[in-house]
Amino acid sequence: MNTRNLIGYNYLPENGKKFKALDPALGIDLPGEFYAASIAEADAAVNLADKAFVEYRSIDRNKKAAFLRSMADEMKAISDEIVERAMGESGLPAQRLQGELARTTNQLYMFADLLEEGSWVEAIIDTALPDRKPLPRIDIRKMMVPLGPAVVFGASNFPLAYSVAGGDTAAALAAGCPVIVKAHPAHPGTSALVAGAIKKAAEQHHMPEGIFSMLYDDGYAIGEALVKHPKTKIVTFTGSFKGGTALMKMARERNEPIPVFAEMGSINPIVLLPMALENRAEELAKIYGSITANAGQFCTKPGLLFAVKSAGLERFKKALSEGITNVNSATMLTPGIRSNFDKLSKDRLEEKAVSVIGQSDKLDKEKVNQGLAVITEISASAFLADKKYKEEVFGPYSMLVVADDITQLEQVVSSLQGQLTASVMAEKEELANYKQITDKLADLAGRVILNGPPTGVEVGNAIMHGGPFPATSDSRFTSVGTSSIKRFVRPVCWQNWSEDLLPDELKTDNPLNIWRLVNNNWTNK
Amino acid sequence: MNTRNLIGYNYLPENGKKFKALDPALGIDLPGEFYAASIAEADAAVNLADKAFVEYRSIDRNKKAAFLRSMADEMKAISDEIVERAMGESGLPAQRLQGELARTTNQLYMFADLLEEGSWVEAIIDTALPDRKPLPRIDIRKMMVPLGPAVVFGASNFPLAYSVAGGDTAAALAAGCPVIVKAHPAHPGTSALVAGAIKKAAEQHHMPEGIFSMLYDDGYAIGEALVKHPKTKIVTFTGSFKGGTALMKMARERNEPIPVFAEMGSINPIVLLPMALENRAEELAKIYGSITANAGQFCTKPGLLFAVKSAGLERFKKALSEGITNVNSATMLTPGIRSNFDKLSKDRLEEKAVSVIGQSDKLDKEKVNQGLAVITEISASAFLADKKYKEEVFGPYSMLVVADDITQLEQVVSSLQGQLTASVMAEKEELANYKQITDKLADLAGRVILNGPPTGVEVGNAIMHGGPFPATSDSRFTSVGTSSIKRFVRPVCWQNWSEDLLPDELKTDNPLNIWRLVNNNWTNK
Repeated sequence: MNTRNLIGYNYLPENGKKFKALDPALGIDLPGEFYAASIAEADAAVNLADKAFVEYRSIDRNKKAAFLRSMADEMKAISDEIVERAMGESGLPAQRLQGELARTTNQLYMFADLLEEGSWVEAIIDTALPDRKPLPRIDIRKMMVPLGPAVVFGASNFPLAYSVAGGDTAAALAAGCPVIVKAHPAHPGTSALVAGAIKKAAEQHHMPEGIFSMLYDDGYAIGEALVKHPKTKIVTFTGSFKGGTALMKMARERNEPIPVFAEMGSINPIVLLPMALENRAEELAKIYGSITANAGQFCTKPGLLFAVKSAGLERFKKALSEGITNVNSATMLTPGIRSNFDKLSKDRLEEKAVSVIGQSDKLDKEKVNQGLAVITEISASAFLADKKYKEEVFGPYSMLVVADDITQLEQVVSSLQGQLTASVMAEKEELANYKQITDKLADLAGRVILNGPPTGVEVGNAIMHGGPFPATSDSRFTSVGTSSIKRFVRPVCWQNWSEDLLPDELKTDNPLNIWRLVNNNWTNK
Repeated sequence: MNTRNLIGYNYLPENGKKFKALDPALGIDLPGEFYAASIAEADAAVNLADKAFVEYRSIDRNKKAAFLRSMADEMKAISDEIVERAMGESGLPAQRLQGELARTTNQLYMFADLLEEGSWVEAIIDTALPDRKPLPRIDIRKMMVPLGPAVVFGASNFPLAYSVAGGDTAAALAAGCPVIVKAHPAHPGTSALVAGAIKKAAEQHHMPEGIFSMLYDDGYAIGEALVKHPKTKIVTFTGSFKGGTALMKMARERNEPIPVFAEMGSINPIVLLPMALENRAEELAKIYGSITANAGQFCTKPGLLFAVKSAGLERFKKALSEGITNVNSATMLTPGIRSNFDKLSKDRLEEKAVSVIGQSDKLDKEKVNQGLAVITEISASAFLADKKYKEEVFGPYSMLVVADDITQLEQVVSSLQGQLTASVMAEKEELANYKQITDKLADLAGRVILNGPPTGVEVGNAIMHGGPFPATSDSRFTSVGTSSIKRFVRPVCWQNWSEDLLPDELKTDNPLNIWRLVNNNWTNK
């Protein structure tokens, strides 16, 4: 494990401020010293990325795909080491991290497949119509091209799948954008291991130096320098509302404002409809598993449950209470996240309007930095009276909001802000009666779910992981799945261009056999 | 012509500050008094749009298409009146405005066709794989849905095609977004006529009231109120850098930041390669037509010409000089635009480094507010030394930048900011030798053109009218052509949803026969 900053193919000399990685479960430092990068090093990384961009963008798609596959293979080759270090740095269990590593490598394979198939560039061709009246039509051909160097912030809660070689990096590299990762200081060792795997794969495939760099910092200076660098063209971030909005502000106050895709807070409301509660209250109460998995540290953790008073709801509450009481405490990612969770959940519990449905008492005394699950209850009217209840509590916490009737239920749902997900638990026969509510959920969120938990995000073509502000900075893009590549590209059209100098994707005989819209017809011929 | 503010189907009582329309060619007021809307009226228009959105978004696509067609038909029914009023208000000639009206109605027909065909929603389906290991795959289906109420600012230089019923309005209504137009104060009568046609079409098709409103203001208060309204979800604008960046700032400082698509300044560089100059200098000099058409008041007017010193270039300059001297003066859109043009072109001419290639002396003394064409010359080194030369001069002005050699030519091209278009005049056999330059042009711009003027934007599927900042606020979208609908939508996915409650676009048997990506295969079955 090389713990120094990586610019292109070179590890920088040791200098600057040192920091260590913390084992949050034991409260002790882990081996290895990491060096906060300097502003000059951040500058050098972006300049090198910009230089690499000229060559990298034009590299054959099959070569890019092979490189992405090798990234995954190199990670797999050291998977035990990666998982062990990530366990130490994050407090997450082995099984979760093994699954996350599989997701991470699968994402890379998925983008490799996408590149080889090739239709993702959205090629559109309108050929010349010299005889058109009143004016002839000129030949115009359009496709997506990469934006340029991307700055990717590693996420604390996904040390692999949304960090150094995570979804953002994979999508950016697939799009043709060089990547500069700002490693998350909570898992620098994991980051070092993964960056080493990427470096190895890049060298093996003779990729232009600078398509990947990774810098450390346990403060904000390097992130800021990277975002403000004139050659940075896009920024991605997964984390807090505060962090995301700070980056958005920096990016738009540049001389050249650039897009930031920030995935921020989401409370992922779940509406429980009456018939479903009546028929299967106890089964529905198993949702506590989604609330507490990995100490509730998911962007898709359901933080609000909505229902109308009923006998079924009382049974649901009873089962929920029993379930939550028996959930073991779990290590939280960092002491900062833990203290913030403790503060917010305590604040809620001290409110007169809030009562406790259930609270775990299974504290693991062998470990520190533990999150104890709690689920509270509030009336719909009290919920509507204070907007703080609509804010995310990151950790194993959720709140049941009880409405007097369906009208009030609609009212609370309508009062919500933008979300990544919104779910409804319903019997199919009752669903049509609540169309106003389900329409409203689709209006709020990027993903609406019937009879399932929001956690466990499928990585595929159809997934939408994004949503109206404040869930993300731009609801028009997803950060998960093949479509997430669209964040990193823009369309360019060539007008009356010389056939032999057109990109292959736009050549008349379609040498890549990709799907294209040609003179208003979809064809892969 | 009803000159009052229109909210939904109601013209508001006359109140507030009055203003009149100016005939810029004659310097006199035109008939009709217009009333600046109040903040309360702006609020009412957005609230009504938000209410209408709930119904409008779900209206059948064929009904929406029929409504768009009727908008065009109602405009055609009063085309003489529209063109006459627009001539008076804009100073643009009849033929141009007739063509612009045809473009405007064709845009509406184009979006009607797009809706009826239906594939634009980008439907993607991943069906359930219950037996997948290690985890089953859940059914997920994604498509584009409208963002919500859109505020559209009418553009001064396209009183029809980028104004009340222009490309932005057509795309927004097609997407399912209600529209509130802030009419441009330079053509309020034209706006009134077109708004009347839209109202008629909307009533005829029983569209929910509020899907279209139009407000006047000869200042900035109403535009600001519309952009800051919490129920406004997207803003589009075509105009100055100053105006566009002011709107961007307002939109991002809201509690809920919203996207602004602003099309702002572009100088549309043209690179003239040596062999082309040698072979056809006189033909290439005809570019003065693109520089001076409609007093150069196009966002795609070529404002910079680049070439290396040569005998061919001298012939080009001579022909250009002769051409430009004989261009008649033309009425500019407003006295403000004229005085700004005069000031900027005079500033340039006073610079020591700048010389005149040619200047029109054909002033039409019968009219006021005339723009006189001028083309200047500067050395590449002087051009590089002062960034003001890279700023747009809106009007019949262009500047030839003369480089000593190809290296210096590359240097000046590389120094440019983002552009809507970039062109190269070349013989096909020399083009491959200048790949660095043509790649750089594609890097700068949204549309690259070989051997043609940038003016005359084709409205179709393949067009990209947009580009890196400062040309537009977001290079990832176009404001012209069918793809411009993408500015107004976001993806939503339905997970494990009930088949009968899915939108038709996502139903398993594909009742609309649209093109979809189903389990990774493109199909319209």
